[in-house]
Amino acid sequence: MQDLSGLARKEIMSPTLTDIQQARERIKPYAHRTPVFTNESLNKHVNTQVYLKCENLQKVGAFKFRGACNAVFSLNDEEAARGVCTHSSGNHAQALALAARMRGIPAYIVMPSNAPQVKKDAVRDYDGQITFCAPTLEAREATLAKVVEETGSVFVHPHNDERVIAGQGTAALELLEDVPDLDVIITPVGGGGLLSGTAIAAYEIKKGIHLVAGEPEMADDAFRSLKSGTIMPSVNPKTIADGLLTSLGTLTFPIIRQYVEQIVTVSEEGIIASMKFIWERAKIVIEPSAAVAIGVLWEGKIDLAGLKVGVILSGGNVDLDNLPWR
Amino acid sequence: MQDLSGLARKEIMSPTLTDIQQARERIKPYAHRTPVFTNESLNKHVNTQVYLKCENLQKVGAFKFRGACNAVFSLNDEEAARGVCTHSSGNHAQALALAARMRGIPAYIVMPSNAPQVKKDAVRDYDGQITFCAPTLEAREATLAKVVEETGSVFVHPHNDERVIAGQGTAALELLEDVPDLDVIITPVGGGGLLSGTAIAAYEIKKGIHLVAGEPEMADDAFRSLKSGTIMPSVNPKTIADGLLTSLGTLTFPIIRQYVEQIVTVSEEGIIASMKFIWERAKIVIEPSAAVAIGVLWEGKIDLAGLKVGVILSGGNVDLDNLPWR
Repeated sequence: MQDLSGLARKEIMSPTLTDIQQARERIKPYAHRTPVFTNESLNKHVNTQVYLKCENLQKVGAFKFRGACNAVFSLNDEEAARGVCTHSSGNHAQALALAARMRGIPAYIVMPSNAPQVKKDAVRDYDGQITFCAPTLEAREATLAKVVEETGSVFVHPHNDERVIAGQGTAALELLEDVPDLDVIITPVGGGGLLSGTAIAAYEIKKGIHLVAGEPEMADDAFRSLKSGTIMPSVNPKTIADGLLTSLGTLTFPIIRQYVEQIVTVSEEGIIASMKFIWERAKIVIEPSAAVAIGVLWEGKIDLAGLKVGVILSGGNVDLDNLPWR
Repeated sequence: MQDLSGLARKEIMSPTLTDIQQARERIKPYAHRTPVFTNESLNKHVNTQVYLKCENLQKVGAFKFRGACNAVFSLNDEEAARGVCTHSSGNHAQALALAARMRGIPAYIVMPSNAPQVKKDAVRDYDGQITFCAPTLEAREATLAKVVEETGSVFVHPHNDERVIAGQGTAALELLEDVPDLDVIITPVGGGGLLSGTAIAAYEIKKGIHLVAGEPEMADDAFRSLKSGTIMPSVNPKTIADGLLTSLGTLTFPIIRQYVEQIVTVSEEGIIASMKFIWERAKIVIEPSAAVAIGVLWEGKIDLAGLKVGVILSGGNVDLDNLPWR
């Protein structure tokens, strides 16, 4: 029986560097090897050497495609034939729909009925089949269970899934190939899929590298969880970084506890200023969640002066008609 | 005596492919080799294979750096010591200031007193020395003449200068190295520096390649000039593509007449829609002038179905507080 709660199943193991390396080979034909950009204005402004891993230029505009793609192409033919499913109204939904389409299998997406039209359209553009539910946790889980029962499809959790975590770790693998002498890697943290995959890849490749995560002050569950040593879920978080509203999972939390040095919270103002700066100076579109990682440097709460810092820009999906500096 | 009118001097010759190749070697230590991006959504939307040469990711955020850099580093030490000067309130001013700073010489920029503050700041950021003038053609030329007299600096015209044209042609050189089997190259056209440099490079490398330019309907002097066979200046043009307000020069016009197949005009709506699409889908920030080249495909006035089309995205300098879809 599938676990649909997002809680760890007994048989789930934290992925290893080998899993991440295999994921990289598996997704290679489908995912972009995204470029790493540098920007002198940014370096000057934050007094470090920053290397931007541009997952905003990834398929579907976010790193989420790596994990979804690895999960979909990890399935054997029999499993795959029944399709995949998830609950998400964000980048993971689009990513899973596209990966499934690439494999020629259906993707069933459970989405709250009040999700923005643009997100519904995006999933449908990738041939995802949407089932709407009421915007509550209970309705979401009940609807997902019903979809699984009716279709036999395989649940791919947005972050609490070892195949997904391994996939997300491939970005750091590429980044460290391109810039082997990094001192620090910064990612944003929401559910922790990107952060835990990055942590495993980076630390196993380069012991002693510093792993830092940026989190919105207004959704600081990971910060509090790491401090208290137990998962402290967010309660009704409100931040412009809408990709970081979810809390850590039972699978991602222990990995993050093991490897991640520090979680730095970033103010809403810092997120917006960082986002605008990157658009203006680096000429790339990043979403607020990606700007949170820049915000760590921007707000200068930790001293990284003179270091070589890799930043994983998680995505670039924004509503251009609703920009935060309007 | 220097020619300050932007009219052709007797000794000025149209640059050759060799000049462009030399320019490329000359600017290599200073300019970025910009990436070439593809985007499936765009390809699908316009029914061609599009290759985006990202000059928005060039130094100062525009191809203009190539021409300015080539001009500055073409000077002998004696000429260089006196500095360079120009009249511009746009990307060329910033480009010349940065190139001059890289050579360690002064750049004198004549700018109308009513230029936006953000443009004045940008030039000063690159240590350009601004002399303001009244916002008329006469004042501009008189002020420039005075600057030259006082400083002995070398005038580098924004487009009507063979060193500048050769520099701008280096983008096409790189593009054709990366994608040798292009059928078409599209650039925007304002003064014609980018278009004429591109035309020489592309046609001399690959006879039979089609050269097309996009121009705002509201500033269609090049379209009318090519049609009439004589330079027809714009009279008070008003377009969102503020980099394309200038008219063709005496040096660029004959080159364009010789090589360029067609100038296609693009509506303001087409420019804005193209710009927004590239931001949303390709996740890169382009300025309206760059969007004009996409607009040629977007509005479908010429049939390029199934062809391989290179588009030079000329720049990415925009005021994020004044976006056209607000």
